[in-house]
Amino acid sequence: MAEDKSRLELIEALAKRRGFFFPSNEIYGGIAGFYDYGNIGTLMKRKLENLWRKYFFGLDDNFFEIEAANIMPERVFVASGHKENFVDPTVKCRKCGTVHRADHIVEDYLKESFEGMTPVELTELIRQHKIRCAKCKGELEDVSILNMMFPLQVGADLEVKAYLRPETAQGAYVNFSRQFDIQRKRLPLGLAIVGRAFRNEISPRQLTTRMREFTQAELQIFFDAADIDKHEKWNEVKDYKLILYPVAGRGKNPEEVTCEDANKKMDIPKFYAYHLAKVQQFFLEKLKVSKEKFRFRELSAEERAFYNKMHWDVELNLETVGWKEVGGVHYRTDHDLSGHGKVSGQSQEVFFNEKKFVPHVLELSFGVDRIVFALIDLNYDADEKRTVLKLPPAVAPFSASVFPLVNKDGIDKKAEQIYESLKSDFDVFYDDSGSIGRRYARADEVGIPFCITVDHHSLEDGTVTVRDRDSTKQERVKVGELKERLK
Amino acid sequence: MAEDKSRLELIEALAKRRGFFFPSNEIYGGIAGFYDYGNIGTLMKRKLENLWRKYFFGLDDNFFEIEAANIMPERVFVASGHKENFVDPTVKCRKCGTVHRADHIVEDYLKESFEGMTPVELTELIRQHKIRCAKCKGELEDVSILNMMFPLQVGADLEVKAYLRPETAQGAYVNFSRQFDIQRKRLPLGLAIVGRAFRNEISPRQLTTRMREFTQAELQIFFDAADIDKHEKWNEVKDYKLILYPVAGRGKNPEEVTCEDANKKMDIPKFYAYHLAKVQQFFLEKLKVSKEKFRFRELSAEERAFYNKMHWDVELNLETVGWKEVGGVHYRTDHDLSGHGKVSGQSQEVFFNEKKFVPHVLELSFGVDRIVFALIDLNYDADEKRTVLKLPPAVAPFSASVFPLVNKDGIDKKAEQIYESLKSDFDVFYDDSGSIGRRYARADEVGIPFCITVDHHSLEDGTVTVRDRDSTKQERVKVGELKERLK
Repeated sequence: MAEDKSRLELIEALAKRRGFFFPSNEIYGGIAGFYDYGNIGTLMKRKLENLWRKYFFGLDDNFFEIEAANIMPERVFVASGHKENFVDPTVKCRKCGTVHRADHIVEDYLKESFEGMTPVELTELIRQHKIRCAKCKGELEDVSILNMMFPLQVGADLEVKAYLRPETAQGAYVNFSRQFDIQRKRLPLGLAIVGRAFRNEISPRQLTTRMREFTQAELQIFFDAADIDKHEKWNEVKDYKLILYPVAGRGKNPEEVTCEDANKKMDIPKFYAYHLAKVQQFFLEKLKVSKEKFRFRELSAEERAFYNKMHWDVELNLETVGWKEVGGVHYRTDHDLSGHGKVSGQSQEVFFNEKKFVPHVLELSFGVDRIVFALIDLNYDADEKRTVLKLPPAVAPFSASVFPLVNKDGIDKKAEQIYESLKSDFDVFYDDSGSIGRRYARADEVGIPFCITVDHHSLEDGTVTVRDRDSTKQERVKVGELKERLK
Repeated sequence: MAEDKSRLELIEALAKRRGFFFPSNEIYGGIAGFYDYGNIGTLMKRKLENLWRKYFFGLDDNFFEIEAANIMPERVFVASGHKENFVDPTVKCRKCGTVHRADHIVEDYLKESFEGMTPVELTELIRQHKIRCAKCKGELEDVSILNMMFPLQVGADLEVKAYLRPETAQGAYVNFSRQFDIQRKRLPLGLAIVGRAFRNEISPRQLTTRMREFTQAELQIFFDAADIDKHEKWNEVKDYKLILYPVAGRGKNPEEVTCEDANKKMDIPKFYAYHLAKVQQFFLEKLKVSKEKFRFRELSAEERAFYNKMHWDVELNLETVGWKEVGGVHYRTDHDLSGHGKVSGQSQEVFFNEKKFVPHVLELSFGVDRIVFALIDLNYDADEKRTVLKLPPAVAPFSASVFPLVNKDGIDKKAEQIYESLKSDFDVFYDDSGSIGRRYARADEVGIPFCITVDHHSLEDGTVTVRDRDSTKQERVKVGELKERLK
């Protein structure tokens, strides 16, 4: 995976300079794996989250958002398996004390994948090949394991053992039975959480793409496993072509396969394939990701998380770091609900379709920070003349920028009026400093689709100049028609 | 403070039954102080947050939202003073082991306020008055102190000491200097964070009004302390009457005082008074809280947090628990920025108004969960006939509900069409089960302002029945006019 360092650095500098994102607690030197969003980045992230809500809740009248606590008691993670299995192998350098991901250090050295190896096996490989610290060449200790969850003690007497959730999903599972009642006992039922997840990653890196605290937008769809090979809207998608990169096709190009063929020839159940199509359409149609930059990557049994039976990641081919996972479609079966039923003693069975059963779960999971980063990466366009972020308008931090050509002759007043009138319906930005050229450049850098300039003619004929970000073409538009135009 | 138990219980039952909120991890028996929001509550909370953003960012073009990590390194809280001062006195029962807030147990016994007493003084009072465990009458140990922050260890070797933030505010302070540069070095600068805060409260209680994990919406306004007695929009508010409950007026009724008088006679600086007015208008005009239920309560030097120089709480007079703090306007001076400057070694001085100085901070702080609770409490109206939540439409979970009178004769198709056409612009709810009376009742309980019923006439003349939640009046409206009506 080639890293174009200079482009990554350019994006990092832009993100800092214009307020997309930057290291958290920067004045204290930061902590690795934590980033904050500035004003521009926050506007963009909120828009992405709201677009996600509108799109995915639009798929089914029984899909809704809920909100769950970040701190959850230990038993939740005993039930989910995270307490035992959410671990990474680590190895510490005897000399400099640096802790490495043991499988990564072995992989980097031997250029081979060692996913799923035990600490004992990894230690043997390190001894056998005399692998040393990547930082100081010091000798390595034995491989041990680190649970990636952050533990906490809660209560006046610190009597409750708890963790910060490593995924939002568990918040949906523990609320399933109550929410099923509230939503009048119908399946499929979709429970989404847009919120934080926390993982004590061993090596956070690549800006906001691997963080220790990050935002997920996850939709857990509870359904009757007997219905996995149907979907009432199947006809909508059956001829739609999925872009698939299956285990069997590793090393080849992704294939375009209709949902119908994916179902018939690749054994992807209809309920699963339907949601693959909808996820792909979200990226291609809503986020305007080009087809060549998108693929679903199938994970093999060794690569999949311990709770998944089928797992296709959403990967985008970034300019900076190559193919990057930004989401996934996971068939988690009844793993979680059955686990919670067992550990809590509260049956998670429902009565539906005239029988009793524990629903299965299809999870649509998205890393919000990674998608924000991907959109910046894919739409960043710089040459000698200008730097422009060609963001899709739906996620651009501002819909338009309003400039008075000069700050006198009533032009500033007129521009302020226009700004105020647009503000109720759009996020607009007012900029009255520097030359118009500099203001265009500032607007381009943060991806504002339209710049509206108010000049002397505006006072006479009520028109303004509207300049398009991507084509840089300018045209005169009547003030009264601006709102329609921005929509 | 009289608690109307039955009303509180009724609201709790409604909140659970209809999906406003309920204890987190309920199937595991929950942990005290943690609540999750169901589908209905989440819709309401999101609307409140977005209304808050729109209103407060509308006050000044230089007010913006940012997003900061929940986990922050220890030095942040050394600088802010939370490490040393964010503590509560606790006392443990020797017999049953229950831990109590020491000042509360003394206050409950002696019916007097003991805010600000040291552990030694509290222990003496307990010994002197032979105060015993409120739960089992056992003997109490000596008073100790508990820091209310949750500590964490971060890093592959758990080498970084950190805490979950106890307030969102610190996230704005540590980002101030970068964000000041990004926003082109202008004051006042407003940085808002809408996010979680975490406090290991000793006695969480009253449902969502005192939680261990909760949502704050806080706006930190950085300004030149020399400008504290001016505001460029002073004329907008000078005749506006603030509802004040000052320290000097304890035991009396709140007073209505114009901003002008508050400034001249009560020494409230104009910059502060202006924002009091805007906060009050948010509650009275946007959230439709009636005047009699609102007051600003001034806190005395003993009651104020250690970092505040002036502190007026927003209190609402709830039906269930009486006057309750739901927000506050805090003049934090340069306490935080100077502290961060000192501990980080990074000067927080700015050059503005032709001089160098550390900006002062006016904090507008809101407890989102408490406001959601307050809105349910204040608008809950039940008699023998019906239970209705008279929520202001801006925060009602749904704008309207659509009912087909019967599920046949094409009426259901027509109703679905109307539902689909409204869905793109509004949150609407489709309900086709049970009698119309039952459907009205369900809609009333969650505060849906309008119910739209589609019947046989609709197919003939294109009109539907629109029923108003509060008056229960019904009228025929043309389908084409529905959108305008809902706005």
